[in-house]
Amino acid sequence: MLAIEKIIKASQILKEVIRKTDLIYAPAISSKNKVYLKSENLQVTGSFKIRGAYTKVSLLSNEQKSKGIIACSAGNHAQGVALAAQKNNIKSTIFIPSTAPISKIEATRKYGADIKLVDGVYDDAYKKACSFQKETGAEFIHPFDDEDVIAGQGTIALELIEQLPDIDAVVVPIGGGGLISGIAYTIKTLKPDCKVYGVQAEGAGSMFRSIELKKRTELPKVSTFADGTAVKMPGEHTFELCQKYVDRIVTVSDDEIATAILTLMEAQKLVAEGAGALSVAAVMFDKLPIEGKKVVCIVSGGNIDVNILSRVINRGLLKSGRLSDLTIEMLDKPGQLKEVSQIIADLGANVIRVRHNQGGEGTDINDCYLKISMETKNAKHLCEIKDALCKAGYKVTSGL
Amino acid sequence: MLAIEKIIKASQILKEVIRKTDLIYAPAISSKNKVYLKSENLQVTGSFKIRGAYTKVSLLSNEQKSKGIIACSAGNHAQGVALAAQKNNIKSTIFIPSTAPISKIEATRKYGADIKLVDGVYDDAYKKACSFQKETGAEFIHPFDDEDVIAGQGTIALELIEQLPDIDAVVVPIGGGGLISGIAYTIKTLKPDCKVYGVQAEGAGSMFRSIELKKRTELPKVSTFADGTAVKMPGEHTFELCQKYVDRIVTVSDDEIATAILTLMEAQKLVAEGAGALSVAAVMFDKLPIEGKKVVCIVSGGNIDVNILSRVINRGLLKSGRLSDLTIEMLDKPGQLKEVSQIIADLGANVIRVRHNQGGEGTDINDCYLKISMETKNAKHLCEIKDALCKAGYKVTSGL
Repeated sequence: MLAIEKIIKASQILKEVIRKTDLIYAPAISSKNKVYLKSENLQVTGSFKIRGAYTKVSLLSNEQKSKGIIACSAGNHAQGVALAAQKNNIKSTIFIPSTAPISKIEATRKYGADIKLVDGVYDDAYKKACSFQKETGAEFIHPFDDEDVIAGQGTIALELIEQLPDIDAVVVPIGGGGLISGIAYTIKTLKPDCKVYGVQAEGAGSMFRSIELKKRTELPKVSTFADGTAVKMPGEHTFELCQKYVDRIVTVSDDEIATAILTLMEAQKLVAEGAGALSVAAVMFDKLPIEGKKVVCIVSGGNIDVNILSRVINRGLLKSGRLSDLTIEMLDKPGQLKEVSQIIADLGANVIRVRHNQGGEGTDINDCYLKISMETKNAKHLCEIKDALCKAGYKVTSGL
Repeated sequence: MLAIEKIIKASQILKEVIRKTDLIYAPAISSKNKVYLKSENLQVTGSFKIRGAYTKVSLLSNEQKSKGIIACSAGNHAQGVALAAQKNNIKSTIFIPSTAPISKIEATRKYGADIKLVDGVYDDAYKKACSFQKETGAEFIHPFDDEDVIAGQGTIALELIEQLPDIDAVVVPIGGGGLISGIAYTIKTLKPDCKVYGVQAEGAGSMFRSIELKKRTELPKVSTFADGTAVKMPGEHTFELCQKYVDRIVTVSDDEIATAILTLMEAQKLVAEGAGALSVAAVMFDKLPIEGKKVVCIVSGGNIDVNILSRVINRGLLKSGRLSDLTIEMLDKPGQLKEVSQIIADLGANVIRVRHNQGGEGTDINDCYLKISMETKNAKHLCEIKDALCKAGYKVTSGL
């Protein structure tokens, strides 16, 4: 049984290893309430997972420790377990599907883990891990459905209560449910009037669906770029704890998550991964009854592949109308490019890329296309530019 | 005259407005010393500039305040002054060259400043600001060469001494020199055995050059993407203080700055602007005699245009060999694409873009090109792939 003593014990164990991450006031996230960010993306290993993993490993017996530990993960749990093993001077073997991003594999290797790359997806890696466990008797560290792991994650709530004593609500990302279980249990035990809300990606709403149906339910498939939360079925412990202690669970779309990531970068200078930005997305897009409240969003991690980050930035800029692509059909005669450029410049947009093509199928033979990418202020600004071009006689469509 | 009492007074004034930013241990920056990051990018307004601006504005007389304040800047100083005015309930007028990025203009406007966009570059905006000052009698807030501003920036050093009492060295970005003047004065007064090092961008080394020549020297031009430090000539006060209190100044290249920005994002989950990453670049690229020392890098700001950030990411990935472009010349016959793909896959690289073109000038008529972008582990990994392709008979060149 989880008990508040276990959370407090975990926080003592963790003192030597983790950072007490900063709580950052973030007025740019929402003007309707007071938003604070618990910056677990700035935690050691780049996510909260070290809290649970280190707590679990530290509580193993010496005999268990001597046999080493195993995990199966391509993400934050892998790094948490690897570092926990390194700090405890024990051996860790991490099974990673070979499809995982190179950057995550390298980050895990850096903490001294023995990496076993398994051809295929997560399930394939998991099978290998299980048979390795049987051979060696090493301890399998579950990423979320384990009481010691949950107790470790719950230590965040102890810090929150100290950092913001008059906290009204906590918004927490959910994958398997380990993080929210620990936080909800601790909050409802020590400060029961504080609300605890969970957020899942629309394409991976296993806990959302399970709570709705009042029973643990496996999704046929999960699909979200918040890969840290792509879990098909909640754990037994975590489902029970969520049912008992969580006030509400909502979902957000991948586009909403991408916008949240971009806002965190631009306004707060923080790099968050998809899973880490779920809580912020829920607040930004008004999914929760928190008007006028003091709300903490748990930014659970920042381990996002920079290639993906680059794509998120572009998508976010396009979506918010600050990067705009236009295709302008015009006659292939002198002076047209100049006129178009003039109209755009007069309206204060900044052209960053131009392609000029002769027309193809579906256009007159002496038509040509001008494809322009520009920095604009917002969607309204783009409309003004399109209107001005139309008035000047050009045929304009969005996109390249 | 600057006095330690002024720094302490400034820190009392600032208490109500600024964040005491976190000091973050950052082992990924260098294995040769213990690096800590003073995260002023997480400061209110996204940079340290609010410290100086708010201190200065708060110390104005009521009569001065009633006339309002003026600044000329396209960057962090503009935001600092605008917020300082807003918090003091006085009017601010900020002159910004119209060439400034839209995102910075909007950020400044958000703090309630009256924005005057001036056609041209900084000098044009500065002229307008001066004549406006004469008309209105409003107080001109200098970005660096002002004792109250310098005292405000110096408050960072008070925090450092408290956050890391056994600090050996501080590494500080330099533009006009306000930040380092305040920090160096405070450190050398309170903890004289701690070294203070300055860093400038190679293309904007005005303080570096002035100290070398032992007199304030104006550079004919400045060119760096660390736009927050693009200052042609140091201030009078700041030059004098640097001469007296700074142990050494070094320079870093734009490529080194870009690599530092990427490392801060990937390893520390922090968004830094070019100026903000100068200190980290100097440590990463071994410019300073700090082996085995406890070193604080001031990450002075995070206000980087996300479009530029996106370019920095790409450049950094290419430079560190984690994104690689190859052009492969091959015969235009079936099976070649498959063979090339097989070789690349076997070596564990991840193809992200492929273009297949028939050859142009300088190639045989039945040759064609395969242009491949892929994620690789590092420069060595790319070499292995190139070698394998060459052995299989392909002609391979780097780049697209």
